[in-house]
Amino acid sequence: MTTIYDDPDEFAEDQLAGWLDLYRDRVRGVTGGVVALPVRGADPQVAVVIGGGSGHYPAFCGTVGQGFATGAVVGNIFTSPSAAQVYSVAKAADQGRGVVLSFGNYAGDNMNFGLAAERLREEGIDTRIVVVTDDIASADEESSRRGIAGDFPVFKAMGAAAAEGRSLDDVEAAGRAANAATRTIGVAFSGCTMPGATEPLFTVPEGHLGLGLGIHGEPGIEDVPMLRARELAELLVSRLLADRPQRAGARVAPILNGLGDTKYEELFLLWGRIAPLLRDAGLELVEPEVGELVTSLDMGGCSLTLQWLDDDLESLWRADAYTPAYRKVAAPVEALDPSARGAADDAGEADVAEGAAGSRRAAAVARETLAALEAVLRDEEERLGRIDAVAGDGDHGRGMLKGIHAAKAAADAVPSHAGVASVLGSAGRAWAEKAGGTSGVLWGAALESFGRELGDDAESLGAHDVVAASEAFARAIQKLGGAQLGDKTLLDALLPFLDALREGVDGGAGASEAWAAAARVAEEAAERTAALRPRVGRARPLADKSVGTPDAGAVSMALALTAAGRVLAEQHEEEKV
Amino acid sequence: MTTIYDDPDEFAEDQLAGWLDLYRDRVRGVTGGVVALPVRGADPQVAVVIGGGSGHYPAFCGTVGQGFATGAVVGNIFTSPSAAQVYSVAKAADQGRGVVLSFGNYAGDNMNFGLAAERLREEGIDTRIVVVTDDIASADEESSRRGIAGDFPVFKAMGAAAAEGRSLDDVEAAGRAANAATRTIGVAFSGCTMPGATEPLFTVPEGHLGLGLGIHGEPGIEDVPMLRARELAELLVSRLLADRPQRAGARVAPILNGLGDTKYEELFLLWGRIAPLLRDAGLELVEPEVGELVTSLDMGGCSLTLQWLDDDLESLWRADAYTPAYRKVAAPVEALDPSARGAADDAGEADVAEGAAGSRRAAAVARETLAALEAVLRDEEERLGRIDAVAGDGDHGRGMLKGIHAAKAAADAVPSHAGVASVLGSAGRAWAEKAGGTSGVLWGAALESFGRELGDDAESLGAHDVVAASEAFARAIQKLGGAQLGDKTLLDALLPFLDALREGVDGGAGASEAWAAAARVAEEAAERTAALRPRVGRARPLADKSVGTPDAGAVSMALALTAAGRVLAEQHEEEKV
Repeated sequence: MTTIYDDPDEFAEDQLAGWLDLYRDRVRGVTGGVVALPVRGADPQVAVVIGGGSGHYPAFCGTVGQGFATGAVVGNIFTSPSAAQVYSVAKAADQGRGVVLSFGNYAGDNMNFGLAAERLREEGIDTRIVVVTDDIASADEESSRRGIAGDFPVFKAMGAAAAEGRSLDDVEAAGRAANAATRTIGVAFSGCTMPGATEPLFTVPEGHLGLGLGIHGEPGIEDVPMLRARELAELLVSRLLADRPQRAGARVAPILNGLGDTKYEELFLLWGRIAPLLRDAGLELVEPEVGELVTSLDMGGCSLTLQWLDDDLESLWRADAYTPAYRKVAAPVEALDPSARGAADDAGEADVAEGAAGSRRAAAVARETLAALEAVLRDEEERLGRIDAVAGDGDHGRGMLKGIHAAKAAADAVPSHAGVASVLGSAGRAWAEKAGGTSGVLWGAALESFGRELGDDAESLGAHDVVAASEAFARAIQKLGGAQLGDKTLLDALLPFLDALREGVDGGAGASEAWAAAARVAEEAAERTAALRPRVGRARPLADKSVGTPDAGAVSMALALTAAGRVLAEQHEEEKV
Repeated sequence: MTTIYDDPDEFAEDQLAGWLDLYRDRVRGVTGGVVALPVRGADPQVAVVIGGGSGHYPAFCGTVGQGFATGAVVGNIFTSPSAAQVYSVAKAADQGRGVVLSFGNYAGDNMNFGLAAERLREEGIDTRIVVVTDDIASADEESSRRGIAGDFPVFKAMGAAAAEGRSLDDVEAAGRAANAATRTIGVAFSGCTMPGATEPLFTVPEGHLGLGLGIHGEPGIEDVPMLRARELAELLVSRLLADRPQRAGARVAPILNGLGDTKYEELFLLWGRIAPLLRDAGLELVEPEVGELVTSLDMGGCSLTLQWLDDDLESLWRADAYTPAYRKVAAPVEALDPSARGAADDAGEADVAEGAAGSRRAAAVARETLAALEAVLRDEEERLGRIDAVAGDGDHGRGMLKGIHAAKAAADAVPSHAGVASVLGSAGRAWAEKAGGTSGVLWGAALESFGRELGDDAESLGAHDVVAASEAFARAIQKLGGAQLGDKTLLDALLPFLDALREGVDGGAGASEAWAAAARVAEEAAERTAALRPRVGRARPLADKSVGTPDAGAVSMALALTAAGRVLAEQHEEEKV
């Protein structure tokens, strides 16, 4: 959704004005676009003037600067600039050594840049045109293809060639070679919204992706069912490898480009799937770029580009560039010491001593309880997330599930002869390690304390031991978290539970019976947290929103206590049989 | 929408693995996170270890490198890393001069980084903690505030101080000073979606924004009606200026940060509104940053941060840094020549000669026709955009409206004594200039040709002159666009119109009568383009999708011809009266 604007009709002009204000120390605005400020005392260079519509940032003005474009023509959103704009920017960019105009292959751009070239030539400015045609999905014949993210490496090749002082013929030739060596395939997940519009330009059918996207909000050529990251990586790589240019070597510059709404973490994850596929195909990956280089407002989607390098293209690709949006300087990376490695950080596993009989029986109950809790938390993950999202960050269900997964796996990895302290110690440390977050630390420390209180050496354990262990469980949480009863935290379920458990056992009930009754108290107490205002934790800034919804941590605590109660009851039945 | 992943539970680990593959030449992965490779032969530095959950890229690992953080701890999405992770990364980052742990103020992070600091100190590693508390919306007391985008300048200050070789005490002090001087306010437009989830963590009510957003998918503190960019700028600036720290000077480092879905162009536009407000408040803006620095997956929203600079903070803010995601090198910018300016690019206005009587009457009709067309295109903008979006880029309605606005304004600016060639010449040039795109060029050239054919010197003009002018109009389009009848372009409405017009006039009809009949032919012909497959233009790659929908350019051409017909008919009625 494009949300920030004043007059939608002035969006392109307004955003350019803000950008020019921001980068006033390195570019200047001219009629129709921007040009780089020249380097003081430098020899004149061939001017590389790029452009197209707005909405593609950092394309196109974001790459105006040293080692890249000399100027950029800035059209309206997704609309070719006019011939007059192109002419004006080229005139301002020209340093007397001729001009290359370069842009993606679209009818409007061809027409306007072409008209401008005629006018420049009439005035005696030698002007060449290099059209980018990298999108393999858009046409079979290479010359008819659209230009999409391949704009980036083609423009960069010419910018680097111009910065080396090459002639107009040679800069043009580098651009043509770069374009011939560059191939892109993209996918769209969702459309983008023009400023002032309330609906996206297109939508991708639910559960699908559009293969062969455009960068002007054009949907894909073909809708295919949504793919996991591994499958998507295979699709992109296989399509590009099937369309290798003639005389392709074994070195490529890969570019994984995000369209806007698809975020960095997703691109990195996908890169982690793509890179091995490319290497398995025998390719050497030269300084890959993963990020947003040619966008389409807030469109969801990404594209993979390969530029097949020869020696010259490789040196142009590796060359330094310093522009507002793209900065590449080799020196700081070359200064690094790749051989420097820290100490190995694996801690050896300690041997686990054999637990006494009572502690081993308790360990078995603990293992079963962890399994039961894992099942409950899997079922309740989404609900816990929703409760947490009302005034928190919505990660509670996810975090609890991560924690219990890790705790159960760690407990299962402890030898079966171990006592309950060993089992819950491993489980608790794993929970804290894997779940992260507040609740992870608290749950991890609490489980560890519960087990430590019971100990590995107990020959028999009774109801009073369970009370003492539960008290240790609660103390760990109180000490670490610093919360009080009524602060709207998990303590508001746990402390009433503890009182009820103690009261039941003191009144003569067995552990199983007292626990079950106390767990019901916890369930009710968790529900009653809906009336509370949070006084600590992440929900505090949103205290007002939180009222009316129970605390997610109290709810999950009650779920856990109830699950443990069921295991204790089953255990009790078995012992009676 | 978070779309790319394999197992949602492994999202954080998987994205980190891809990122480590990408930046293997400058960072190394360790248990719990990443550390920068050291510079060969450099003196040891204080280690600045930052971190928090994933989902905030480039925070936190993206800023590990020279002049910034030494290491980053990488937790799960929106979840604090565990104490064991923090400990592990800090151990790997430590160079023997002590460690500063720094992170945003959240309970889980405080707990886990705090536990890790205790363990590090027990092992004799001097460890300090600097908590970032920049979010003015989250609490009144400064020490209780959350950390959001202010992480960025606070971490940078410490990274720059460490890179200068300062002591642990001094790096810690720089961090505390930076945090005390840093204030942020943010707004949310839309929630973010966790990997594997189908619904966003929160939604902002339709037509509203959430003031005081968090960066973990927390909604705003308060929902306020949606604001235009100017109002939003005023809101953000006024809130920050009202919360100036004590001893604030007149220099600030401003950071306008995008949360994910809010794109660069929107941020630049907003910056164009914010910068003057800050300058009007007497502030000097030091190297502002506008972009995505601390994100929240694909959340829509932005925040404005001001760091109030003293001499030391300014030098730390200006210092070079070279990290995967943030690269700042002063030398290339200092090498530029800001005094270099191109030739002035304003063309002087030519005097407009007085037109002959017939040409002036035609000019009046032309002006009225432009006004009528503007009204029609305003009404039809959205429909034309939708038609175009089926297989094109959806910009046709917008482009036509931009064109006619400009054409009408240019025509109105021509003195009333001018003839039709002057009026339509100005109108056509303005249309091509402002609309851009294919249709802009074609319409501009066609209008200019229509006027040129009628000329400024005609004492009287008849129906045959209108036919000749219409033929010139069509010729300009055919010559520039290179399309044929049946290619599914505006010619498929225009050429049938022209045949009908010629036939009507040759058969003795007056211009008004023949034009009206021919315009009906054009309307029908435009509808019939639905059956055609595009053979040129942007719709060609999506030829199959296009079948069943008329060509947007043919539809708008028919609308224009019909509007012109109505003006001619009114004119004809008046002349009869």
